[in-house]
Amino acid sequence: MHKIDMEMGKDIYEVNRKIAQEINRLFDEKGVKAIDFMGSIGSGKTLIIERLIEILNDRKIGVIVGDVSGDDDYKRIKKYGVQVVNINTGKECHLDAHLVEHAIEEINLNEIDILFIENIGNLVCPADFDLGTHKRGVVISITEGDDMVRKHPLIFQISDFIIINKIDLLPYMDVEIDKVLKDIEKIAPKKVFLTDAKSGKGIKELAEWLLS
Amino acid sequence: MHKIDMEMGKDIYEVNRKIAQEINRLFDEKGVKAIDFMGSIGSGKTLIIERLIEILNDRKIGVIVGDVSGDDDYKRIKKYGVQVVNINTGKECHLDAHLVEHAIEEINLNEIDILFIENIGNLVCPADFDLGTHKRGVVISITEGDDMVRKHPLIFQISDFIIINKIDLLPYMDVEIDKVLKDIEKIAPKKVFLTDAKSGKGIKELAEWLLS
Repeated sequence: MHKIDMEMGKDIYEVNRKIAQEINRLFDEKGVKAIDFMGSIGSGKTLIIERLIEILNDRKIGVIVGDVSGDDDYKRIKKYGVQVVNINTGKECHLDAHLVEHAIEEINLNEIDILFIENIGNLVCPADFDLGTHKRGVVISITEGDDMVRKHPLIFQISDFIIINKIDLLPYMDVEIDKVLKDIEKIAPKKVFLTDAKSGKGIKELAEWLLS
Repeated sequence: MHKIDMEMGKDIYEVNRKIAQEINRLFDEKGVKAIDFMGSIGSGKTLIIERLIEILNDRKIGVIVGDVSGDDDYKRIKKYGVQVVNINTGKECHLDAHLVEHAIEEINLNEIDILFIENIGNLVCPADFDLGTHKRGVVISITEGDDMVRKHPLIFQISDFIIINKIDLLPYMDVEIDKVLKDIEKIAPKKVFLTDAKSGKGIKELAEWLLS
């Protein structure tokens, strides 16, 4: 990251915005509903997408999986038999619209109606880069502590929904979920889902809302 | 992040390296041992530093706390009565040597012999920015899953030590710690500490090693 490859005088955010708009138009033209899942490492983004694929088994789903390195998440999604593309960013700390533009060249958009994008595990950088999706959401795990919203307000503010995951671990943690909910109400009043992706708790409500 | 403020033609990494070298010389001159703690959000960096302060109560300690926003961690450290400086980066996803250079202007280096720096919660960006410390370490929480080392190899490779924290939660997680240890051995064979910062388990060994 931080190595910016741009033509003189062009604002990278502006370039990203334009590509994102084009992608969004393409999604609409093809009738594809696209969702960007952001969130820190280990917050449970991949497992939530796996559970959504299981629940939405009457839908044609595509997935773009972003990681700095490796294909662990790609393999996890691949076993569901859906279209999936892996993006390894190398050193970049977020996906951008240009990377997604290339990834969707590898997906037959005529054959899917939902596209899930799993962003790089990071609560800071992805916020600045719209990927042309219809909705953006942040996944936080209760194991991250109860101060993550006020520590990283921007990513919550630019999101449409917030998933608080791993709520099954609450009894074993010194974490007050009410503090998180109060911070959300104050800093970024968005739709909130409480989930335990391991057991599947809360995923049905999420799936229904995403498609509404 | 991604907004790079530089003079034409200057490499930001090279600029950072030079400032880091100056900081390192200053630490040596003042007899201060400095440690950079990196790691994702909620991995337990602050609590580990708190436990180290408790154990090293015969030492004069200073702390620099980095966060995108807020002063939660600052307040937690402040109550120990040590010198502490809060850096809010706003949108930056890592500390850099220039930020640390200004932070240490607010610390009386003649009155401390150890400086802990808590970096921004992020497993990608901080890796590229040496802060002039004598040792750099990564804290990972077992709740992040067992694939985080191979997903983010660089930050482990440039570190001197790795802390695997929250091992008390292992019984409640589908996580195999052996997988993490094998990845470390293969990708970044560094000194490893298994800790449960909540109870203090493993912190004494860490403190002894850091000062050795």
